[in-house]
Amino acid sequence: MSSHLDREIDSLKEKLLSLSQLVEENLSMAVKSIKNRDLELSKKVRATDSDIDKREVEVEEECLKLLALYQPVAIDLRFVIAALKINNDLERIGDLSVSIAKRVRFLTEFPTADFPYDYEELAKEAKSMVKKSIQSLVAMDSQLARQICIDDDKVDMLNKKSIELVYNKISEKPENTQAYIHFLSISKNLERIADYATNIAEDVIYLVDGDIVRHEGAEL
Amino acid sequence: MSSHLDREIDSLKEKLLSLSQLVEENLSMAVKSIKNRDLELSKKVRATDSDIDKREVEVEEECLKLLALYQPVAIDLRFVIAALKINNDLERIGDLSVSIAKRVRFLTEFPTADFPYDYEELAKEAKSMVKKSIQSLVAMDSQLARQICIDDDKVDMLNKKSIELVYNKISEKPENTQAYIHFLSISKNLERIADYATNIAEDVIYLVDGDIVRHEGAEL
Repeated sequence: MSSHLDREIDSLKEKLLSLSQLVEENLSMAVKSIKNRDLELSKKVRATDSDIDKREVEVEEECLKLLALYQPVAIDLRFVIAALKINNDLERIGDLSVSIAKRVRFLTEFPTADFPYDYEELAKEAKSMVKKSIQSLVAMDSQLARQICIDDDKVDMLNKKSIELVYNKISEKPENTQAYIHFLSISKNLERIADYATNIAEDVIYLVDGDIVRHEGAEL
Repeated sequence: MSSHLDREIDSLKEKLLSLSQLVEENLSMAVKSIKNRDLELSKKVRATDSDIDKREVEVEEECLKLLALYQPVAIDLRFVIAALKINNDLERIGDLSVSIAKRVRFLTEFPTADFPYDYEELAKEAKSMVKKSIQSLVAMDSQLARQICIDDDKVDMLNKKSIELVYNKISEKPENTQAYIHFLSISKNLERIADYATNIAEDVIYLVDGDIVRHEGAEL
């Protein structure tokens, strides 16, 4: 049986999927802008983030409309509430991409300083976690969501490794301290993106299995 | 006229206020644990955070019950949705207090390194913003909420000043680099707490005035 409400929920899933794709693309663009010290590209990241913000507002309005019109209960109500929270987290991941892209301006002053850690691996992991988190919501797949919580430990480990490498670089080349601290912040931002993906996964686990999984992000 | 729904909404407001007080107290405790390098106190911050997590889950369940039982519309529906998001943000502020308290363990290795910036002012501002953000929700006071967005600029400025002071300290005493980077992270965490308070304020402005205010946190 496919009710109006079911169709609305399917449409909501599609919108979140499409928003997530935009968020993932913008993250890739942010990392590329840093890699190439590309100021134009970093501005494009900001512009795309405005689109993300608009779409987040639209999705939230969609959820409110759905609640008011269909007054869903049980699992449908829980789904809409999870969608609201996840929508919010996607927008915040968008903000973190902007935060990464913003460093380009500072880093152009340090042309000889480069990432002291494997940012490509870290960015790839974080992006893949965002993708999987929304896939787990759309498919209501708590197994996949639980996998994301495991992936997050890997990202935490990579971030810790980055911190070590940054410390070493600062003692090697103290004249580039500011640049290295920007690289440290980028690693931290990628780790925070992974944390948001983990939050999304936790919402999916609660939605599907009813288990509360409280993740305490490793912070530095 | 006071309906059942009105009373439930009042009770929800009280719960958020009380959760916010706990979050504010735990933030003070976290900052104190750093100031005194007090490992026992930092453990207490973690324990209190478990209470915050439990209470966040309870408030969310309360919101879901309210939606299912009363099927609110218009401003009541918007209030419950704002409460859900704000509840979530309070829990994340709690996580940031834990992140601050966690540094105690590292900082005991650097007994001679101290805050290179005025952490007390920064912490006071961030805490006051959290308090005011929940007050603005309870009183549905968008004027107060708009004030918080202005306060956030001050916190961003203080955080930027901290970064400068940390850079200077690193070049003065490179042997304490790791400690200074922990202090940098604490400043960043306080700035993120202020950002969450600002997010709460933005939700209140949207709820009361219907204006979308998108705050882009200054990041480093």
